[in-house]
Amino acid sequence: MRIAIDAMGGDNAPDEIVAGALETIELLDENDELILVGPKDVIEPRMPSLKSYRGAISVVHAPDVIAMDETPIESLRRKPKSSIGVIARLAKRGQADAVISAGNTGACVAAFQMRMRNLPGVNRPGIAVVFPTFEGPVTICDVGANIACKPIHLYQYAVMAGLYSQYQLGIENPRIGLMSIGQEDAKGNEVVKKTRELMKSDPNMNLVGNIEGRDIFQGVCDVAICEGFVGNVILKLTEGLVDGLFKAIKHELMEEKPRLAMKFKPVMKRIYKKYDYNEYGGALLLGVNGAALICHGSSKAKTIKNAVLAAKKYYTEKINDKIIEYLSGTPVSSETPNGILAQTPVRTTDG
Amino acid sequence: MRIAIDAMGGDNAPDEIVAGALETIELLDENDELILVGPKDVIEPRMPSLKSYRGAISVVHAPDVIAMDETPIESLRRKPKSSIGVIARLAKRGQADAVISAGNTGACVAAFQMRMRNLPGVNRPGIAVVFPTFEGPVTICDVGANIACKPIHLYQYAVMAGLYSQYQLGIENPRIGLMSIGQEDAKGNEVVKKTRELMKSDPNMNLVGNIEGRDIFQGVCDVAICEGFVGNVILKLTEGLVDGLFKAIKHELMEEKPRLAMKFKPVMKRIYKKYDYNEYGGALLLGVNGAALICHGSSKAKTIKNAVLAAKKYYTEKINDKIIEYLSGTPVSSETPNGILAQTPVRTTDG
Repeated sequence: MRIAIDAMGGDNAPDEIVAGALETIELLDENDELILVGPKDVIEPRMPSLKSYRGAISVVHAPDVIAMDETPIESLRRKPKSSIGVIARLAKRGQADAVISAGNTGACVAAFQMRMRNLPGVNRPGIAVVFPTFEGPVTICDVGANIACKPIHLYQYAVMAGLYSQYQLGIENPRIGLMSIGQEDAKGNEVVKKTRELMKSDPNMNLVGNIEGRDIFQGVCDVAICEGFVGNVILKLTEGLVDGLFKAIKHELMEEKPRLAMKFKPVMKRIYKKYDYNEYGGALLLGVNGAALICHGSSKAKTIKNAVLAAKKYYTEKINDKIIEYLSGTPVSSETPNGILAQTPVRTTDG
Repeated sequence: MRIAIDAMGGDNAPDEIVAGALETIELLDENDELILVGPKDVIEPRMPSLKSYRGAISVVHAPDVIAMDETPIESLRRKPKSSIGVIARLAKRGQADAVISAGNTGACVAAFQMRMRNLPGVNRPGIAVVFPTFEGPVTICDVGANIACKPIHLYQYAVMAGLYSQYQLGIENPRIGLMSIGQEDAKGNEVVKKTRELMKSDPNMNLVGNIEGRDIFQGVCDVAICEGFVGNVILKLTEGLVDGLFKAIKHELMEEKPRLAMKFKPVMKRIYKKYDYNEYGGALLLGVNGAALICHGSSKAKTIKNAVLAAKKYYTEKINDKIIEYLSGTPVSSETPNGILAQTPVRTTDG
């Protein structure tokens, strides 16, 4: 498979990105190829002789870079030859099976959505991240691609994130939770209620029902489904809260027991590492034709390596094929009236 | 002032509730009165001779109790003489200036909303909680009263939570943040965008603009405004994450350094206490005529004491009068077209 990597994405680009790519080479199969994308004059001096890699790695020139704080759509338009724009186009043309970037998240989502076609049966791509909790990994989708979610989008996220959880993370028959504000069926807003009906009408979905914010960390489900606005708040709140709590613990220890604080430091580091979602290679844009990974802006070489391995597993496990197959066989469609199972196959008006 | 307390609310009722009420008596002024509400035969045996309190405390009989897991609206209808129903009616009849319950949250919100009138100028009450962060207390509103928020509701939450932050918590000119999924003005869903326009058209509002989930813990704002669905997820996610993280820390320490774990235990307890929002007396239903406090189901005597003191401060500071005054003078109304300031006073169609 061919994996295109945005060499200029993130706070530690290009050094850490290039280093991460080089680290993975010995783990790849013979037919795999990494494509580093960015300004040639910046990337090539950072690489040892290309010849030593027997064609396992190549460089594609992209002179422009989209900064982390640029407006996504506008910057993509103004800089068609940006590294993000170019990796998306490589995927579009079938010259890359996977794309990886630690750059401007908004620009990545926009570029991948614009350039890479949706999988058949998928209305809207959604971003999935894996939260490594004390009770095991929980996949949350969507965390920000779609802030005008319809019930059918959320249903499809459940299908896609469920298959991802099963085949990428190895969780047998993953339990799907629908994020709401109370566990009873009657709770939730209109979109949540209609989504639950759609989910219930799918006999193959292992639905545990409504979940609440706290359930993510309590082993209640393996997959948590929510609309992009809510998921994005969850993602960023978690980041901020973990940082804030560790800061508070450190402060409290330093204030009273500085020696205890020193001993606690390596423990905190280990916990950070164990519960760091970057270990899973970043966020995945589910529903596009290919494997599209968006890494955290602070990514170092190891995250990029994890992302390459995650992309490879996603490709090898043929998860996109499984999504297409599942959605082509499901009785649930956007035309299913109020979640009551239509007795006859339903056709969309434009098909 | 008269403060009605649901003696049967929460997991530790009635013992802890009655104990908490008794503890506050010596802190009250001469004209203050606590009204304990619940089955007389349950409450009275738990109290020392009422005479010793010089009329500072009384008991109002309410034979029924709504359990923590009952359906709110239905249980209120079926049990009109529940302790929650009775404290709400005491407030309605002007026989109580404040109500406090650690019982079924949904039933409390429903009862207080149904029985206590909205303050003039307030369209919908909202629940505010204070997050004690490392950078200071942040008031979040709404955390679950209103899951169909319109921009005007969110604007009013900003006004009310701002005045609460200022007069209850003593924060000068509190900074208001609007919860979104990106800091730029262009980010957010339609409700968020319109709310921001309304907020901007109020020259007296100290708006810092859009905030993200992580900003709550980073000293960016003193007040965070969001719709009830999002706020409820934030509240419960925070509870679950703090629990989960402490569990992970404990596990990690026990695994490798059991002696360090023992030393760390009191530190964790202290942090828990310092960052426990129950220290602020629970959640407040802003926008109703009175002070309505909803405490956590796990409340102990101290939480009830904090709630009584919070209710007293809210009443003494005349925060409701300040809300009425602010809203009667604001140029922003639900009729303000797209947030563009109407040049002439606007009347609502039904007034």
